[in-house]
Amino acid sequence: MQVQIGKRRVAHRTVAFDPSRNQVKLIDQRLIPHRFAILGTRDHRATAQAIRDMVVRGAGAIGATAAYGLAQGARLFRGRDLSRFERHVAEVFDLLHAARPTAVDPFNAMTAVRRVMRAAQTVEEQQALALMAAEEFADENVRECEAIGRHGAKLIRNGTRVLTHCNAGWLAFVDIGSATAPLYAAQAQGRRFHVFCDETRPRCQGSTLTAWELAQQGISHEIIADNAAGHLMQRGEIDLVMVGSDRTLGRTGEVANKIGTYTKAVLAARHGIPLYVAIPFSTLDWSLRAGRLIPIEERAADEVLCAVGVAISGAAGRSRDRGEKAWPVPFRVANPGSGARNPGFDVTPAELITGIITPAGIFKPGELWANRRGLGFVAGDKRKVPVD
Amino acid sequence: MQVQIGKRRVAHRTVAFDPSRNQVKLIDQRLIPHRFAILGTRDHRATAQAIRDMVVRGAGAIGATAAYGLAQGARLFRGRDLSRFERHVAEVFDLLHAARPTAVDPFNAMTAVRRVMRAAQTVEEQQALALMAAEEFADENVRECEAIGRHGAKLIRNGTRVLTHCNAGWLAFVDIGSATAPLYAAQAQGRRFHVFCDETRPRCQGSTLTAWELAQQGISHEIIADNAAGHLMQRGEIDLVMVGSDRTLGRTGEVANKIGTYTKAVLAARHGIPLYVAIPFSTLDWSLRAGRLIPIEERAADEVLCAVGVAISGAAGRSRDRGEKAWPVPFRVANPGSGARNPGFDVTPAELITGIITPAGIFKPGELWANRRGLGFVAGDKRKVPVD
Repeated sequence: MQVQIGKRRVAHRTVAFDPSRNQVKLIDQRLIPHRFAILGTRDHRATAQAIRDMVVRGAGAIGATAAYGLAQGARLFRGRDLSRFERHVAEVFDLLHAARPTAVDPFNAMTAVRRVMRAAQTVEEQQALALMAAEEFADENVRECEAIGRHGAKLIRNGTRVLTHCNAGWLAFVDIGSATAPLYAAQAQGRRFHVFCDETRPRCQGSTLTAWELAQQGISHEIIADNAAGHLMQRGEIDLVMVGSDRTLGRTGEVANKIGTYTKAVLAARHGIPLYVAIPFSTLDWSLRAGRLIPIEERAADEVLCAVGVAISGAAGRSRDRGEKAWPVPFRVANPGSGARNPGFDVTPAELITGIITPAGIFKPGELWANRRGLGFVAGDKRKVPVD
Repeated sequence: MQVQIGKRRVAHRTVAFDPSRNQVKLIDQRLIPHRFAILGTRDHRATAQAIRDMVVRGAGAIGATAAYGLAQGARLFRGRDLSRFERHVAEVFDLLHAARPTAVDPFNAMTAVRRVMRAAQTVEEQQALALMAAEEFADENVRECEAIGRHGAKLIRNGTRVLTHCNAGWLAFVDIGSATAPLYAAQAQGRRFHVFCDETRPRCQGSTLTAWELAQQGISHEIIADNAAGHLMQRGEIDLVMVGSDRTLGRTGEVANKIGTYTKAVLAARHGIPLYVAIPFSTLDWSLRAGRLIPIEERAADEVLCAVGVAISGAAGRSRDRGEKAWPVPFRVANPGSGARNPGFDVTPAELITGIITPAGIFKPGELWANRRGLGFVAGDKRKVPVD
């Protein structure tokens, strides 16, 4: 997408590759929304470190980062010995996989890259194929998001007021995003609409990442506290809810997503407001038979007890880290003597979901299984599916 | 209630009066939960300033502060000229009223004090009556909260898991609180239970004030993000919801309260979890005929875009204000280019409310009007009722 840098608007993907320097180029998401910086990793070790340090996050984005990182590492090998090369590639794979072991997109993405590499018989050809396959993985991610946008854009008319939750935006993918794709597509078609971004405590991905994305694209939006959506629905100020998903069950149509999604779905159903879930194929889990079987990660209490931000200029307690004002730091908000519960995700039942927007079209939750052949289902598929 | 100060536990009211020094004594709520300090105001001007500066907040608490402030100002008058004294008292009244003009508890409380004063014919007697009336106002506030506690404690059994929203605790009243009163009463009766405190963005009264109160009283509790309550209900981890109210309509049983209350009520109803609203008599509005007529204050966007806290010790950006680490400061969380909507309150319909806990007992929302004589209703009552 386009980013405003000074007076220029520049096109950026969340993740890209510079073949001449053999660098993976990442938008440093730790600094968003307070700063914009591109971080180039000089080797696969630095790429793994960037995944570990949360320079890059989001299922599609870390998948592409790992794919590029594998190609990057493969290209650093000197010599023609194929078996030594393959051992080197296996080490690179393990290093990148260990950077975020519970995530599955890096594993799936790198597995795909290796499958392509094996078609060649020389180190040099395999190195070339690795980069081709990583680029193909990234491009396919973008094409899927574009297709989601095409299908979902129909739901947005002039004047539609959309509620979003968390960030399933282009920062979470290679570009465009899932839940944001219909917004960008509708904008490209000249429609004008308004987006309410749930703040999305505890990590505030809505008020930081989604709001930053929408501001960059010039889409009319306002941030609201997670508490405010019910009131706005009651007063007739929301027409449509659009969210992403971390795992969608192909058999039942249940949707696991960021904590709070279930609450919005209950409210939307009460007020007769349609709720759509936008997902790439990789989010579909064809094996699990019930949403209650999805493990819900209990995350660190400090996410709830604290918040991350920058001290307000001129106020007491200005951040002085590295001599700059705008470096975000954690602040304790809550009573120091108290603990917290912090479930990271919740599960929304199919009955509360109007439709699932996929690259292959919009389906009712109950229609996924019958349409599985067109939705990326492969019998006996051994790909891993996200745990959360 | 009892507060732990160092190794001692000391009883404190939120608002009190020291007759020997003619001082209003206030817990400085701007510092809770990070520090505990009592602020004594030496005259009515300082008391008005303390109301303006949010040293004290909460309907019952600022009512009692204004009542004490009026007595404090009256006692500073030197001389025996009754008409000059009455002009002086009128000036004190106006000064204290102007400190928080949209609040009505100060107006009602001071009107009551003046009514009592007029029974006497000398300055000295009126000064004595002013203090007596202010003390009586504060004591009556405490008695009402005690009665709410007696009635509400029956709802809490051993093992009950209670969800609270915002702070209708003893810091918002003279002592004990409304929504917290049943908790403290149940604890005094030896019952053990657990409280989930909604963080209550944007101002975080749940994670700061309510959590601090419960920690001081040694009640088992955990803070949760506002997004998490629905998930906990879905998993069967909440048995009861207990909230306060800013205005309850006696004619319809509708409840205006902190933004997000409506959302909890919708969730509780879906899961068959009882929701109770605890209120003193002064919260009942007998005139308004529909909840949609309640004006909903749109508060400053910065409440949503920012949060207040203390930089974490050892982290970059430590607060250095006054050379102390623990002074809370505002910091920006959200994307700097984005705006926010910030409705401060919402209205919950009667159908979602199990019961209203009043000092006169527990009523179904639809039973309030029929029982109005026992609930403080006076025909032609000219007392003001809170706007929000």
